[in-house]
Amino acid sequence: MFAPAELSEDGFLGGRLRIAQPKAGYRSAMDAVFLAAACDACAGQSVLELGCGAGVASLCLGARVAGLRQTGLEVQPRYAALARANAQSNAMTLEVIEGDLAEMPADLRARSFDHIIANPPYFVPQSGTPATDREREHALREVTPLALWLDAGLRRLHPDGMVTLIQQVDRLGDILAGLQGRAGAITVLPIAPRIGRPARRVIVQARKGARAPLELLAPLIVHGAPQHTRDAEDFSEIAHAILRGGQKLLIRR
Amino acid sequence: MFAPAELSEDGFLGGRLRIAQPKAGYRSAMDAVFLAAACDACAGQSVLELGCGAGVASLCLGARVAGLRQTGLEVQPRYAALARANAQSNAMTLEVIEGDLAEMPADLRARSFDHIIANPPYFVPQSGTPATDREREHALREVTPLALWLDAGLRRLHPDGMVTLIQQVDRLGDILAGLQGRAGAITVLPIAPRIGRPARRVIVQARKGARAPLELLAPLIVHGAPQHTRDAEDFSEIAHAILRGGQKLLIRR
Repeated sequence: MFAPAELSEDGFLGGRLRIAQPKAGYRSAMDAVFLAAACDACAGQSVLELGCGAGVASLCLGARVAGLRQTGLEVQPRYAALARANAQSNAMTLEVIEGDLAEMPADLRARSFDHIIANPPYFVPQSGTPATDREREHALREVTPLALWLDAGLRRLHPDGMVTLIQQVDRLGDILAGLQGRAGAITVLPIAPRIGRPARRVIVQARKGARAPLELLAPLIVHGAPQHTRDAEDFSEIAHAILRGGQKLLIRR
Repeated sequence: MFAPAELSEDGFLGGRLRIAQPKAGYRSAMDAVFLAAACDACAGQSVLELGCGAGVASLCLGARVAGLRQTGLEVQPRYAALARANAQSNAMTLEVIEGDLAEMPADLRARSFDHIIANPPYFVPQSGTPATDREREHALREVTPLALWLDAGLRRLHPDGMVTLIQQVDRLGDILAGLQGRAGAITVLPIAPRIGRPARRVIVQARKGARAPLELLAPLIVHGAPQHTRDAEDFSEIAHAILRGGQKLLIRR
């Protein structure tokens, strides 16, 4: 377990959630919230988050949609324990399974879900400077190849279940390759920091077994001003509604 | 050859080019112009267009950039002849080779180019209603798989040459798969009809042998008004500058 002194508490969804995260470790921020906002789950459905970390995305989703049956899979023991503690401290229900998606635990192997969500590590091996914190490094850098995340997710989906990922934009080709022939109705939502700028992230959503053509949506713009002019928060209307208001990210097809 | 009565003449780039196209056949429109505008060729460089049809994209490129050495490959004999005639009637130089990119003519096989451009057929076999005109059908529907277009293009490029394609957005995954491991610095430019709408087309540009990460740019918006309100031309400023003014489409990386 993390010692209390190793943790700090962050507010999410305008303070509706208080989530403990390790000060020196991997800390979820807006990407986890966007991921949760993009998942189209409704009451009664089951959702599995691959690599749930401290549970931010799953808890944000549960805060928006009541009546879900939520499970998180996390390979790092201290993060799995933290996700459980965060669910409890927010009076929410999240089943957290400690295990490696590359060697799917037997109890998960026997189950399937309506939705899979994931925010896989962004950095490929041998790129950039490793994080000094070993657990943070594990959360940031791809140990299990992205293709395996997609494969594991698709296998755990119901026949017409839906997978929703957020990733760094440069992995778009790898994501589409991993979905090829196994999921359709792929929707790509670019997330750009400001209007007119290249996207930094993509949310990719797809339905298992579907055959509808890919759609590339208009970008979600995070900051309202066309340039960085002040250090105060300058979220766009839609980003503010999602990040602070806990609204759903409407992905229209 | 097409009989004169089978042809009509269309203005491109604000009338700077007059290009004959078959009334009942495949007629290039703004996609060919966007393709030409996105190609970053400069004087002295060589450009090969795969499937040049009546020559619209190549001639638009030649009209913007002087001093190029341009070649078009076209499998349909009457279109190849038309492309030659269109070059001549616009007092431009375009070498047109009649041949099939799936069986690359020997003289092209021995050559390489600084740039490849292509606007491959958008529709996969067995989709939608076939065009009644056989040649139009050939231009619209994929006979040669898209992967082969990409392979043929990459093979004909100099070691650090650049390929630029325009395609229907739903083929994005296929395009990225075809470039995987063979080209990098991939830039994806979505083209959307109006602000906030999904993209209908993508321009994909990549450099052979490069390893820089993929970028997903802000969309190019074609029409200025947020909705279709009148039948008159309502191009956005940038679309107007490209389609009527013959300006370059600046793809910033």
